[in-house]
Amino acid sequence: MALLLDQQFAPLPDTNEIATKTFLESVSHLPPFFDCLGSKVFAPIKADINGNITKIKAVYDSDPVKYETLQQILLIEKSTYGSEWPKVGATLALMWLKRGLRFIQILLQSLADGERDEQNPNLIRMNITKAYDQALKKYHGWIVQKVFKAALFAAPCRSDFLKALSKDQEVAEEDCLAKICQFLINFTTTVDAIYEMYSIMNAELDYLV
Amino acid sequence: MALLLDQQFAPLPDTNEIATKTFLESVSHLPPFFDCLGSKVFAPIKADINGNITKIKAVYDSDPVKYETLQQILLIEKSTYGSEWPKVGATLALMWLKRGLRFIQILLQSLADGERDEQNPNLIRMNITKAYDQALKKYHGWIVQKVFKAALFAAPCRSDFLKALSKDQEVAEEDCLAKICQFLINFTTTVDAIYEMYSIMNAELDYLV
Ligand SMILES: CCCCCCCCCCCCC/C=C/[C@@H](O)[C@H](CO[C@@H]1O[C@H](CO)[C@H](O)[C@H](OS(=O)(=O)O)[C@H]1O)NC(=O)CCCCCCCCCCC
Ligand SMILES: CCCCCCCCCCCCC/C=C/[C@@H](O)[C@H](CO[C@@H]1O[C@H](CO)[C@H](O)[C@H](OS(=O)(=O)O)[C@H]1O)NC(=O)CCCCCCCCCCC
Repeated sequence: MALLLDQQFAPLPDTNEIATKTFLESVSHLPPFFDCLGSKVFAPIKADINGNITKIKAVYDSDPVKYETLQQILLIEKSTYGSEWPKVGATLALMWLKRGLRFIQILLQSLADGERDEQNPNLIRMNITKAYDQALKKYHGWIVQKVFKAALFAAPCRSDFLKALSKDQEVAEEDCLAKICQFLINFTTTVDAIYEMYSIMNAELDYLV
Repeated sequence: MALLLDQQFAPLPDTNEIATKTFLESVSHLPPFFDCLGSKVFAPIKADINGNITKIKAVYDSDPVKYETLQQILLIEKSTYGSEWPKVGATLALMWLKRGLRFIQILLQSLADGERDEQNPNLIRMNITKAYDQALKKYHGWIVQKVFKAALFAAPCRSDFLKALSKDQEVAEEDCLAKICQFLINFTTTVDAIYEMYSIMNAELDYLV
């Protein structure tokens, strides 16, 4: 379970403030998650998420004290950009990044919960579709939705996916699922906190791509 | 017709040798071609082609004298890489790049020839499909082919595409088509010469992505 252990997220403080530096470090281990899907078809997704991370990191690096937490980034960008905000800067990058994180979270949770297509117990298409429907579909126009449906056929089977998550080490399925549960604790809290922040700050947009 | 004029390719010498530097300069104007298709759906294609160009440029820049022509690149890489070749280095990058160039060439030629779907005269789907079928389809597995079919719906209508090629200047359609014909002369010769080189050098591969 090397992959997910490498990227354990930090617990949140009582204030729910998310330290930008720690967040960026944890999240930088996630793009390889899309390599676990096993096909180069997913390369554009990985590139999109990497782009989000790079953009947030650039803002942070420009002034690590000023942008110490994700909350501060949104507050400062809101006052800097005026009416352009929130479709701008690190605020926009994090808006999309959180959707990719939510996708990963729901997919892993669904696997951990043992949700399966009884007709095809070794496929994870239904788990991927659930995650997509809840995290991304409503932000995608019909063409991208169609592309998603086509790309879904490139998804690996369940056992190969779990193996890839374990970086090809021989790990029993139950051990792998237990690690996923472990990983999901802080990860889910973090993703929830980001969503809550966007809601409180009125920073969420629902335009389609 | 700014876009295509900017990127006129140089005529070839009698030897058909292609100067790497000139080629890289001309070809660097092409990725924006995919912006003319008008949708961010095509961003991964542009990125792939940009990646090919970057890879070839890096090899060239490492020793501009040694890699003065595209032919020299293939010859030197063949002797450097042994059995790994041709699925390696700038040879691989140019193998894929030429397919994208062929796609563009066939699409523009088809428009210049006035080929149309009589049912939908203002769509260019049939022209794009023709170019795809001849230049790329056989190198794509069924999933990528399905993605192509979905992405096709994001293609612009004929008039918008011609306008985009002219960088939104008001240009009469016949003038635009005349410029395309003009552009195609050296472009086609160059693409043909690259294909011939791959054939002569036995450097073409037909694995699927
Ligand atoms: C040969 C024929 C080829 C034809 C080519 C067809 C190519 C098809 C196109 C594929 C789309 C790739 C996914 C990327 C989609 C992206 O368009 C969206 C919005 O992307 C955001 O856009 C913003 C501006 O609006 C900023 O630029 C953001 O950038 S900024 O940092 O600059 O602010 C950027 O992330 N991101 C998304 O939808 C996020 C995607 C997360 C994906 C999560 C997993 C899904 C898993 C699916 C598994 C089955
Ligand atoms: C939210 C859900 C999202 C789901 C995500 C789905 C994403 C779908 C994937 C889209 C594919 C994008 C196109 C890229 C395809 C590429 O896979 C191929 C091979 O690419 C080559 O691969 C080599 C290794 O085998 C090297 O890495 C080359 O790189 S190297 O430089 O390192 O050597 C690289 O170019 N290039 C291609 O097929 C070339 C494509 C040219 C395209 C020409 C125009 C087509 C126009 C179509 C108009 C309608």
